[in-house]
Amino acid sequence: METSKKTIIVFSGDYDRAIAAFIIANGAAAMGDQVTMFFTFWGLNILRKPNRVKTQGKSLLQKMFGWMMPRGAGKLGLSKMNFLGLGPILMKKAMRDKNVMSLEDLIASARRQGVKLVACTMSMDVLGIAKEELFDDIEYAGVASYLAEADEANVNLFI
Amino acid sequence: METSKKTIIVFSGDYDRAIAAFIIANGAAAMGDQVTMFFTFWGLNILRKPNRVKTQGKSLLQKMFGWMMPRGAGKLGLSKMNFLGLGPILMKKAMRDKNVMSLEDLIASARRQGVKLVACTMSMDVLGIAKEELFDDIEYAGVASYLAEADEANVNLFI
Amino acid sequence: METSKKTIIVFSGDYDRAIAAFIIANGAAAMGDQVTMFFTFWGLNILRKPNRVKTQGKSLLQKMFGWMMPRGAGKLGLSKMNFLGLGPILMKKAMRDKNVMSLEDLIASARRQGVKLVACTMSMDVLGIAKEELFDDIEYAGVASYLAEADEANVNLFI
Repeated sequence: METSKKTIIVFSGDYDRAIAAFIIANGAAAMGDQVTMFFTFWGLNILRKPNRVKTQGKSLLQKMFGWMMPRGAGKLGLSKMNFLGLGPILMKKAMRDKNVMSLEDLIASARRQGVKLVACTMSMDVLGIAKEELFDDIEYAGVASYLAEADEANVNLFI
Repeated sequence: METSKKTIIVFSGDYDRAIAAFIIANGAAAMGDQVTMFFTFWGLNILRKPNRVKTQGKSLLQKMFGWMMPRGAGKLGLSKMNFLGLGPILMKKAMRDKNVMSLEDLIASARRQGVKLVACTMSMDVLGIAKEELFDDIEYAGVASYLAEADEANVNLFI
Repeated sequence: METSKKTIIVFSGDYDRAIAAFIIANGAAAMGDQVTMFFTFWGLNILRKPNRVKTQGKSLLQKMFGWMMPRGAGKLGLSKMNFLGLGPILMKKAMRDKNVMSLEDLIASARRQGVKLVACTMSMDVLGIAKEELFDDIEYAGVASYLAEADEANVNLFI
């Protein structure tokens, strides 16, 4: 089968949905596909560095968003059975017990395999997320860039 | 690039997901694509007129759904950080601060650009939403119509 | 129109999203399309048998997941307006009132029409769901199998 292209919009910042997105992305990359993941709205939280990063020029509102939103893969909640944060702990243990890669490992694997991670600049603007708060070496783009890639892809998902 | 077609099923009635759907739709229309958005279940609330509309023949259950569901783009909640309605207010302010179009403006822009808005008749039946409660000049169809359009499109999303 | 292929990833275990997934699947099958539905994470609950099934070798954590997650289509909640389980009851009544097929009937219809139901083995492993807890005569596969099918399909949705 010839190499083909996939795009995934990662809108959700839920741990379980992020796992699903990265398992599909890693699977496709392993089969030789080009994969682009566009992170928008709450999905941006998956790309946040876990430590606090000093930023300038944020409005009070943007600072508030920054405080309230989870910093990175380790802090995300579940879309179901979150139980005030107990759910993710149990889910991670269940994944370890079954030797399923953690979200952090799935992200690292995706990057090693050349999956393109793109942060939506408009969402970053609205939520007040600065580039230095996100992983280094990712790309930044808007909807036109997404659409250009989706036009070339044969599988396009919104998660 | 030749003109191509996109379909988006808008199942969710969350403000943030609606924003994402209409940004993609507007972007694609601006690039010359034909875009059809199918509104089903809670997504129908995005198309509701903000004022109360007199209707006939609703069952008590359908009236209850009508009371409980938000009337139009201005009343929608967020999928995350809704905080009993404070979240959407903050999100709208953050969008205004960054000169991002409001959902109402995005909908108006989509209509001006010829994006086809289709309400799912089966969902309307179940939830007891009458045509006169929804925007004028939209279309009404079912799953067969969606599938016929999706077959011709190169990007099909479920939001 | 020639026969074509559709895939749907059913990640969500919400009653309303499951209804949407099966209405699309049934519609496409009725038009002669090959349809494959991949059930992963909470979506697996849609395929659970309603009665308790004895299983062996589950960890305590897996047993807990099993107790907490709904057993089959009849027990699912709504993504919105669930009201501690009242929402699904009202939604089912509204559907009956309008002669819309129940989720159970939609599933039965999909199976009669040859829609392929596939349970994600990795999610089963993590959540500790055994084959004997799911409907008989479904298939089991992982992400590689999904991607192979999606590559041949012209509509791929994530619900």
